[in-house]
Amino acid sequence: MEAKEFRKQIASGEFAKPTAGYCEGYVQANMFVIPKEYADDFEKFAKANSKAMPVLEIIKDSYQSKILAPGANLLNELPLYNIVENGVVTQTLTNIEEFYTQDLVFFLIGCSFTFETSLVKNNIPLRHVDMGVNVPMYSTNIKLKPVGIFHGDMVVSMRPIKKERVADACVVTSHYPNMHGTPIQVGYPEMIGIRDIHHPDYGDAVRIEADEIPLFWPCGVTPQNVLKDVKLPFAITHAPGHMFVSDKKDSDYYV
Amino acid sequence: MEAKEFRKQIASGEFAKPTAGYCEGYVQANMFVIPKEYADDFEKFAKANSKAMPVLEIIKDSYQSKILAPGANLLNELPLYNIVENGVVTQTLTNIEEFYTQDLVFFLIGCSFTFETSLVKNNIPLRHVDMGVNVPMYSTNIKLKPVGIFHGDMVVSMRPIKKERVADACVVTSHYPNMHGTPIQVGYPEMIGIRDIHHPDYGDAVRIEADEIPLFWPCGVTPQNVLKDVKLPFAITHAPGHMFVSDKKDSDYYV
Repeated sequence: MEAKEFRKQIASGEFAKPTAGYCEGYVQANMFVIPKEYADDFEKFAKANSKAMPVLEIIKDSYQSKILAPGANLLNELPLYNIVENGVVTQTLTNIEEFYTQDLVFFLIGCSFTFETSLVKNNIPLRHVDMGVNVPMYSTNIKLKPVGIFHGDMVVSMRPIKKERVADACVVTSHYPNMHGTPIQVGYPEMIGIRDIHHPDYGDAVRIEADEIPLFWPCGVTPQNVLKDVKLPFAITHAPGHMFVSDKKDSDYYV
Repeated sequence: MEAKEFRKQIASGEFAKPTAGYCEGYVQANMFVIPKEYADDFEKFAKANSKAMPVLEIIKDSYQSKILAPGANLLNELPLYNIVENGVVTQTLTNIEEFYTQDLVFFLIGCSFTFETSLVKNNIPLRHVDMGVNVPMYSTNIKLKPVGIFHGDMVVSMRPIKKERVADACVVTSHYPNMHGTPIQVGYPEMIGIRDIHHPDYGDAVRIEADEIPLFWPCGVTPQNVLKDVKLPFAITHAPGHMFVSDKKDSDYYV
């Protein structure tokens, strides 16, 4: 399906699920929305930690995308949003129109769902897509470079990969540096502070077969994890896995 | 040092050690020498298993390289050779002139030492080079595709890589498909039948730090392992780690 058509469905309330596996070949993005007074610091923070938070677009004084999907309404064209107050998710909604003020700045951040089409085309199947669930995501002990008020730990997404395709998965995803690029950890979740791989902090658990190795990519849910430490009074985020599906093609970001 | 100069030292008997870390930027090759009657089968076998045995040059009716190092004498310009009779190494020598007959066919096969310069330039240090020992190599349970009389299991070389550089090591080495390319296994030696990583089957053991992951690349010692199963009456090989250092540059084989 075309992204525009898909977003129309979302806006009409017909779709409120994780977007992995939908709109093959289209760039997907994380969303992070905060009041203007924090925006400059966050922009620098994201730049300093661009493997986790590659900024694709910043929208000020508007709620419409200009670059990723010109005219798309960011207030209702994502499947699910979180309202975060003082570091706590207080509401989860399919529409955030009532919260919009011109004081809000929208950050759209690269998402690893973007390179999933490429993985599948290279015969590297994706368990969460095949199971029809959300990708598992974990808080780690990987410290982000602090900037201004912002600091915290990286979140990663996990995909189990057949042992003989692990190197290929690294190579395929290396071509998408703006969508997190290569894995930050290959195997050995305990090395990055993940204690129980069967209980992700965000998203759903997936099966790992005996001949598979878990690969971990930096994840655009990282800013949401940061909010737990940096308790901004108000922020809006996409709900993990429920991404903004843009009009850009993954090939536009292939290097 | 230039490869030609280095080979001169070897021919004069001044150098009989593993060649990892020597002649930065020059292509290194495995050597496998067998009687003509087996050569066609072996060529097809190598082609069918080119990740383990990428053939760079075949020399018939001569003992001199024509492509990798025109005029180089393959009988004394490698540091160390094994004579293999009925699958058993019967002699290890620095010179094989006395064994040469026109019936012998020389195969020069890509070697992972070739991409080591690239790894180091990308700030991925190599433990065996830093320790001044041979790279550790292991027999595995990875079955080769059989062709004619040839069959057997793959040999791999191992390098411990810092956990945050694992994906980069995969990407860097992917550019050298004729030198084995990407790792065949990342972490988890037991998945490919390696029981004790501290006791390699060929070469030397190296230290693995707590924040390192062992990466395994297909190895050109594979044909020597094959000889243990396919007991040809006579063959000559380089001694593992003691490679033919050619005049070609690694950049000639970068894709």
